[in-house]
Amino acid sequence: MSGQALILPVIMCGGAGTRLWPVSTEARPKPFHGFGARRTLFQATALRVAGEGFLPPVVVCGVSHRGLVETELAEIGVAADAIVLEPLGRGTAPLAAVAARLARERHPGARVLLAPADHAIADETAFRRTVFDAVAYTDERIVTFGVEADRVETGYGYIKTGERLGPLTSTIDRFVEKPDAATAEQLLKSGNHVWNAGIFLFSPEVLLAEMAGLAKDVDGAAGRAFEKASFDDGAIVLDAAEFAACPDAAIDRAVMEKTDRGAVAACRVGWTDVGAWNEIWRLAHRDPLGVATHGPVTTEDCGNALVWSDGPPVAVLGLSDIVVVAAGGGVLVAPKSKAQAVRTLVEALKASRARRP
Amino acid sequence: MSGQALILPVIMCGGAGTRLWPVSTEARPKPFHGFGARRTLFQATALRVAGEGFLPPVVVCGVSHRGLVETELAEIGVAADAIVLEPLGRGTAPLAAVAARLARERHPGARVLLAPADHAIADETAFRRTVFDAVAYTDERIVTFGVEADRVETGYGYIKTGERLGPLTSTIDRFVEKPDAATAEQLLKSGNHVWNAGIFLFSPEVLLAEMAGLAKDVDGAAGRAFEKASFDDGAIVLDAAEFAACPDAAIDRAVMEKTDRGAVAACRVGWTDVGAWNEIWRLAHRDPLGVATHGPVTTEDCGNALVWSDGPPVAVLGLSDIVVVAAGGGVLVAPKSKAQAVRTLVEALKASRARRP
Repeated sequence: MSGQALILPVIMCGGAGTRLWPVSTEARPKPFHGFGARRTLFQATALRVAGEGFLPPVVVCGVSHRGLVETELAEIGVAADAIVLEPLGRGTAPLAAVAARLARERHPGARVLLAPADHAIADETAFRRTVFDAVAYTDERIVTFGVEADRVETGYGYIKTGERLGPLTSTIDRFVEKPDAATAEQLLKSGNHVWNAGIFLFSPEVLLAEMAGLAKDVDGAAGRAFEKASFDDGAIVLDAAEFAACPDAAIDRAVMEKTDRGAVAACRVGWTDVGAWNEIWRLAHRDPLGVATHGPVTTEDCGNALVWSDGPPVAVLGLSDIVVVAAGGGVLVAPKSKAQAVRTLVEALKASRARRP
Repeated sequence: MSGQALILPVIMCGGAGTRLWPVSTEARPKPFHGFGARRTLFQATALRVAGEGFLPPVVVCGVSHRGLVETELAEIGVAADAIVLEPLGRGTAPLAAVAARLARERHPGARVLLAPADHAIADETAFRRTVFDAVAYTDERIVTFGVEADRVETGYGYIKTGERLGPLTSTIDRFVEKPDAATAEQLLKSGNHVWNAGIFLFSPEVLLAEMAGLAKDVDGAAGRAFEKASFDDGAIVLDAAEFAACPDAAIDRAVMEKTDRGAVAACRVGWTDVGAWNEIWRLAHRDPLGVATHGPVTTEDCGNALVWSDGPPVAVLGLSDIVVVAAGGGVLVAPKSKAQAVRTLVEALKASRARRP
């Protein structure tokens, strides 16, 4: 790594993970759970971007999750470069603008690796190698990471690769958001579509130049929220009024889909966004009948099922292709095939509880 | 009722209700739950046999459930004639022998109505009328109550009625225990089979004479357990050693299947033994899709389902003909059709928890 720019990881802890209710809750959302692994998704993310070539990470989280972040970093012995508190969620574009300013100010010459804290990557070494390889393109381009698709997947975004820039890196032809099954199958067969991992590597100057041109409102408001930030016991608190005035925007839509300075680095690193319970089942150890369990669980005459408990005894009898989760004081039961639809159900449940006297 | 013998209700609280886990537990078994009704099954049983013609009830329960019995009786303003504590469960036959001795001693001339506390009867008036009508046969016979079957039911015992003794009362031809579906259908069509409600009306003298002849061991041991009983703060505690030495026996098998002094009084009173969750569903109020819910529950795209919570929010998505119960700190998920098989599953769960360090 000698002679190459250092990388400043900026870890975004904003994923609510509503589809992973009842484990994922507002008080302790998805990034702060391990779903069976020893480390939480946040901890795994922080460890993945640590070591030679990386600066200590910047962690961006909601005000109410600061305690979780600090506790979890202490558990893994990682000291953050900074903790940035979002007064409210405004998407990834304003965070990219803030991260770029922070890096420019504190670590001139460093590249920003903007990464969500709620994904899993099995092969960390391959991931880091891909990141270091991609640094070469960051003088000119904003690099996004594309994962080689290995199955039909309707829950992910896809990137169509364009002109080859290097062995694994291409320009971006276009983005395809969550296709239907038939389209997803075509994309898989095409050989030139990768899953959008939502991870970005950029030099602050390139990112800010592009945002000034393509997402001026977002950049302006995020910049002011950063300029007017206050400090609270060492954490950077973005200015609430300025940040609230910032349009809600994803960097994919606000910048990447518009810029001609984008690039995509393809990799096969065992990436998953751990989006819903069917993915937890897919990642879990399963018995010969396809049953994955966690906690004090008894199953009989079940197949291809996930039965999960964080404490309550759970008994499931005679059901297949099902997800049963008892955690955080709540219970979810759904067919595995409908795990993606849990979001609306949970929102209905919250609404009905709010209505109760 | 003037001129007729008084009736001493003896309420047996022994039903464990394992199939109704996780609501029914060892600490608070089935009789002490209402399953959606305002009164518990025990309270409903006590109120059903109160009023003109009835003496205050004798309640038989396990030592650990005395507090529940006293609290629940106080709630409904019923004072027991006596509380009898079983050192352990030995079935209904020894309890019949104890009840007969208690009645003979404390209420000469009274008839004993021996009834389990874990059944439901919708039409209390019709039930009491049937009981009073049956008293006429108790000088000579032990009367059991038979419920007119109105559907194919494999979970119940049946009684084949014999020779007509009165408008609704017959001799007993034979008992048929839990038939398979084909047999149950034949029994339903036969017109001369009724469900065995497990309720008995007898004069102490007749019962004890029959037991002395047909179940001498049970009668002897139960008699000694009663003679040597101690008193604990007003409750009668059956002698543990003598009661432990008593064979485990049901009055149906030990006496009724053998005696020629049996009779069965047929009634249609909306009786159910509330045996398993599919019966709770059948008894519950259901929406037009056949979904019955209890507690903070959200369902979407479900049909013919029971979703029950005693507190935890429960969300069920896209499943039909299913039972989901979150209660007492445990969770059960099973197809409605397999509700009867919950017993073995719960026993497996208990065993697996006992094994854990």
